[in-house]
Amino acid sequence: MDCWVIRQPTGRAYIVRVSVTTGLRRLVLGRRLASDQLQETLLPKRIALPIFGSDALSSVAYAPDEILLTLSLAGMAGFAFSWEIGVLVAVVMTIVVLSYRQTVHAYPSGGGAYEVATVNLGPNAGLTVASALLVDYVLTVAVSVSSGVQNAKSALPWLTGREGLVAMVVIIILMALNIRGVRESGTLFAFPTYAFIIGVIVMIAWGLIQIEVLGRPLQADSAQYQVVGDPRYDPFVGIAMVALLARAFSSGSAALTGVEAISNGVPAFRKPKSRNAATTLAMLGGVSITMLLGIIALANLTGVRMIEDGASYFTKDGQPVQVVERTVIGQLAETVFADFRPGFYFVVIVTMVVLFLAANTAFSGFPVLGSILGRDGFLPRQLHTRGDRLAYSNGIIMLAVAAIVLVLIFNADVTKLIQLYVVGVFVSFTLSQTGMIRHWTRHLKNETDPTKRPAMQRSRIINGIGVVCTAAVLIIVLISKFTHGAWAALLAMAILFGVMKLIKLHYVTVARETAWRPGDDRVLPSRVHAVVVVSKVTHPVVQAIMYAKASRPSTLEAITVEVDAEETQKLLLHWKSADLGLPLRVIASPYREVTGPIVKYVTTIQRSSPRDVVCVYIPEIVVGHWWEQPLHNQTGLLLRTRLHFAKGVMVTSVPYLLRSASVAKDRIARENPLAFRGIGTTQMQSDSQGDPTTVIPPSPKGNNG
Amino acid sequence: MDCWVIRQPTGRAYIVRVSVTTGLRRLVLGRRLASDQLQETLLPKRIALPIFGSDALSSVAYAPDEILLTLSLAGMAGFAFSWEIGVLVAVVMTIVVLSYRQTVHAYPSGGGAYEVATVNLGPNAGLTVASALLVDYVLTVAVSVSSGVQNAKSALPWLTGREGLVAMVVIIILMALNIRGVRESGTLFAFPTYAFIIGVIVMIAWGLIQIEVLGRPLQADSAQYQVVGDPRYDPFVGIAMVALLARAFSSGSAALTGVEAISNGVPAFRKPKSRNAATTLAMLGGVSITMLLGIIALANLTGVRMIEDGASYFTKDGQPVQVVERTVIGQLAETVFADFRPGFYFVVIVTMVVLFLAANTAFSGFPVLGSILGRDGFLPRQLHTRGDRLAYSNGIIMLAVAAIVLVLIFNADVTKLIQLYVVGVFVSFTLSQTGMIRHWTRHLKNETDPTKRPAMQRSRIINGIGVVCTAAVLIIVLISKFTHGAWAALLAMAILFGVMKLIKLHYVTVARETAWRPGDDRVLPSRVHAVVVVSKVTHPVVQAIMYAKASRPSTLEAITVEVDAEETQKLLLHWKSADLGLPLRVIASPYREVTGPIVKYVTTIQRSSPRDVVCVYIPEIVVGHWWEQPLHNQTGLLLRTRLHFAKGVMVTSVPYLLRSASVAKDRIARENPLAFRGIGTTQMQSDSQGDPTTVIPPSPKGNNG
Repeated sequence: MDCWVIRQPTGRAYIVRVSVTTGLRRLVLGRRLASDQLQETLLPKRIALPIFGSDALSSVAYAPDEILLTLSLAGMAGFAFSWEIGVLVAVVMTIVVLSYRQTVHAYPSGGGAYEVATVNLGPNAGLTVASALLVDYVLTVAVSVSSGVQNAKSALPWLTGREGLVAMVVIIILMALNIRGVRESGTLFAFPTYAFIIGVIVMIAWGLIQIEVLGRPLQADSAQYQVVGDPRYDPFVGIAMVALLARAFSSGSAALTGVEAISNGVPAFRKPKSRNAATTLAMLGGVSITMLLGIIALANLTGVRMIEDGASYFTKDGQPVQVVERTVIGQLAETVFADFRPGFYFVVIVTMVVLFLAANTAFSGFPVLGSILGRDGFLPRQLHTRGDRLAYSNGIIMLAVAAIVLVLIFNADVTKLIQLYVVGVFVSFTLSQTGMIRHWTRHLKNETDPTKRPAMQRSRIINGIGVVCTAAVLIIVLISKFTHGAWAALLAMAILFGVMKLIKLHYVTVARETAWRPGDDRVLPSRVHAVVVVSKVTHPVVQAIMYAKASRPSTLEAITVEVDAEETQKLLLHWKSADLGLPLRVIASPYREVTGPIVKYVTTIQRSSPRDVVCVYIPEIVVGHWWEQPLHNQTGLLLRTRLHFAKGVMVTSVPYLLRSASVAKDRIARENPLAFRGIGTTQMQSDSQGDPTTVIPPSPKGNNG
Repeated sequence: MDCWVIRQPTGRAYIVRVSVTTGLRRLVLGRRLASDQLQETLLPKRIALPIFGSDALSSVAYAPDEILLTLSLAGMAGFAFSWEIGVLVAVVMTIVVLSYRQTVHAYPSGGGAYEVATVNLGPNAGLTVASALLVDYVLTVAVSVSSGVQNAKSALPWLTGREGLVAMVVIIILMALNIRGVRESGTLFAFPTYAFIIGVIVMIAWGLIQIEVLGRPLQADSAQYQVVGDPRYDPFVGIAMVALLARAFSSGSAALTGVEAISNGVPAFRKPKSRNAATTLAMLGGVSITMLLGIIALANLTGVRMIEDGASYFTKDGQPVQVVERTVIGQLAETVFADFRPGFYFVVIVTMVVLFLAANTAFSGFPVLGSILGRDGFLPRQLHTRGDRLAYSNGIIMLAVAAIVLVLIFNADVTKLIQLYVVGVFVSFTLSQTGMIRHWTRHLKNETDPTKRPAMQRSRIINGIGVVCTAAVLIIVLISKFTHGAWAALLAMAILFGVMKLIKLHYVTVARETAWRPGDDRVLPSRVHAVVVVSKVTHPVVQAIMYAKASRPSTLEAITVEVDAEETQKLLLHWKSADLGLPLRVIASPYREVTGPIVKYVTTIQRSSPRDVVCVYIPEIVVGHWWEQPLHNQTGLLLRTRLHFAKGVMVTSVPYLLRSASVAKDRIARENPLAFRGIGTTQMQSDSQGDPTTVIPPSPKGNNG
């Protein structure tokens, strides 16, 4: 995740020393880079568009499908409305893009919805947005991967029936790549995203040319069927019609997902940052709308028909028929490129790849949000600090597991997953836009410069329109989708909200309990009793004994637990001949347990002299490969955990590096600078010249023991 | 997992202080109990039968189904052979039971197949058996739970289509119960197992009475359909017939799974152990055969028909029909108890429960085998020692995950899972019987007592018949099922074999590298440099500083990493006013990373004085609830891990107990003696009077630092 290579038009490649993840994370949080690195990290618009836009762009791969199949509930009459729905979605997208352009200008440091809501509306609004975003990340992965699999089915029909498992495998691969640390190169994102844009637009254009210019009557395969809708919508007028159109619009609004990504990434743009980001946002909106409307137009012209499983069905000559359903893009590509098979494969494959890339952006974005929430104490604080592959990996695994559960439950059915998706997106849109209105109102109060006020007022009006519009969509989504699954998304958000509140409460409580004020007790233990845990006389054990001796404790002894009488006899013989100069105590363990007797013995020592402290030395073997880890030190780990519950006891690990560990250490540091960042690099010098540390000496009257 | 209550006929309840798991584990390994506990732990035959027999007994719930549906490939003609196949399976079961009775007599200490094969045939044979058993445990869970779900479908038809997910949920529940530590009571096993036996036998008897005595023409629901088989088996003669009968027999052999459990549990029986175990084994065989043949007879009489999905199908009046397939027991219960619905529900429910119990025995048995393999160095050694809930839980989670993957891949289809199952069972049967022949041959060489020789020779002959028979079945299974899935089981076994060999090799290599001989280096570091990691001045930090001071290191300083300038300023003010008497060093971290700069700084200290040792003190907060754990000390954990790769550095954790931890410690010790076994119990006194420890003093010429 540490650098990407951008190949310049001149042919010269240079390395950008920041990944999307680290870039976003660092930049969203407003961290200034060392000035000599600054130029390299900034993105030209043409690279920023695919990096921040793949999620938004790829959503046109499923939004038209959802519009058509929802409309299919009204039978053939429904499809006539796909145009109107498409245009309405395009209008909302335009408004949202315009609104976010205001955010981009107002928060050049990266105005994520969470930040905007927290700053302007308070922590509860921020936490609501955060819950919505966390749910959305999971759904982005689930929906994008599922849609990718659905698309792949156009080319690989044997995937049918195995969608859930295939989606699971794809998610596991993405997870593994992200845990390993994929190197996200600009080209990795740029190439497939542009290929997707070009592929879809060429497909639309060539389709329209064939129909309108060459006069070929292109017909999709599904055009031969009739669609029978849900009888409940049979008189497609009045309430039924309004309800269905509202649902179709809600589903189509899935096209808006991912639009906010650019506003998070403003600091990654080249100067003038805000203007470039705003331009890119406009480009993104333009391209998305063009693709969306183009696909819907072509689908109308070629007579593409979709059904919603279990509600509407295909008929031919009045008889119900079983048809393997394909995505709209798959059907269009097949129709348009009927004489040019490679064109079909190209469109289907780039669509699939761009959808998987969109899922991948969630894997990058999730830890960024986690880091911010960790900083604010709503998630484990550890998530805030960097270089913590462990926490980072945990986040990725959590995201993957949640998405896998969803694709398995819904068998990678995009239609069902979409029901959950849109609500969270519009919750964060609405709250973020509301925050923006507050932002402008606050700034207008203090702004006296009459040249700046009109712009602010205009921005406030645009955000006002944005709020009204997104809130209206949110209400439509809630009403039309509540029973279809939106309730589950809301429930998940509520649970996350509650859990994060509780975490915050826990941190506050612990901070209160551990708070130390001058005058509080500072008991200095009078003596240290050292105990070295021994199982055999090996190099790691001898080293631990030597280190323990070097610490010159008041008392020092070795202890061993007798698990096997024969082993103990061997140890005693070896111990005598080794002549290490300290006594060995053998503790009986009739139940062949190791940690219990040691904990009991240590506790006994401590209780017999409560003013002293006991230090338990545990020799540990350090191995070089992750898979060797579970084979060693497990007893030490357990012992340490259990000793932590004893008062007046400290536990010292004495690591012994095997040869493989020394080799591995060098290899890891070479391959993966993140794991060992800070060792032997020059980063400390980048902020301050010379000694990077500052020493605050103790005051002279200090108690030195 | 620690005790079960057995209610005696007198009404007096007494507590047996050992669970199935711990009992098996302890007793299989030949560990002698303190004599005052010995009487209590031993099982009467009537309790031993359900505990060790639930797996074997429950397999009659799916074996008849597999016989019938395999035979369905030959259409209606096939079903005629179900009797012959059933009798053949019964004969093999009789031979296997007789063979295992010899094992029970020869290994009163518990002759698990692994032990028998290792002792008599060498480690590679033992490891082969172990691989087969590990695969079998996974399949026991997958098959038993799947079959339980299939049975439940008879009463809950809406489960259809969701079998995989339901099975997954059941496995997750079993996993959670076992991780939490279910208290396996004798009644928990005894009641449902006897209910199952009684239910099935009453069903068979009442069915036969109705048909033969009362003359009612009972017909199963599926009897109205005809079955059309696979055209490949259409002329049901010659090779096709032999092949199909062989396959049906192989599938039916699933009835033998679990028979070996009693031979592992001999030491848990009341005296005379071997004779009681042998009697129980005979009882188990008798009951199993009765139920198996009874079910097949009744299925024949009532015309139960099964189909194999995708190969054979039902027809009615010559037209193919869709019929929701039900298990044989479900169909029989419905037919026999047509006028008595509670009877139907009783049979279906106890069948389901006993199948889930059978899966649960795998959760108990898996860690036992893991412990033995850990002792021998084929799996992490930690598995060998007890009281290690962590390792124990890991084993349970691994077993559950593997079984879940299987039920998801095969959508809980028992028929497909059975294809994998039987091969492993017969690999271990065959190798274990071969080992028994070697055993008798070896003993016959040294046995001169002419009164004992005939019994041994007879045993050897019985085991000889056992080998021939089980080897023949193994070959039939391999040939008839290889392409149907047995290859996957063999592949899994081969991989496990390889992995375990590699683990052993790793242990041997590490032992060689760490071996220490008198005369090897024993470098005593000259000084200790202590560093206390500080983030805020809190009680845990002050305590760590005091403990560090008590250790009187050569140099002592506190260090902090500047992640946020404002936080650092606050810390410095607090530090000054706290007046703790040691300097605080602030390390810059431009990338907001904590561990890297600390590791770098510590490494620098160590490099500047390579003959010294650096001791890093990390204050840690100890919390009371498992869910609080991830919220604390994660940075400390990472820091410790990374410091382990540095030479000449030791890491001391200084735990600070929050109030919730002190409370939790007492609660855990009260609720769950396993977690804190050895603290404050009397176990040490049970083996030796007075001081349970022995001290080996250092020899006078020892170097005391």
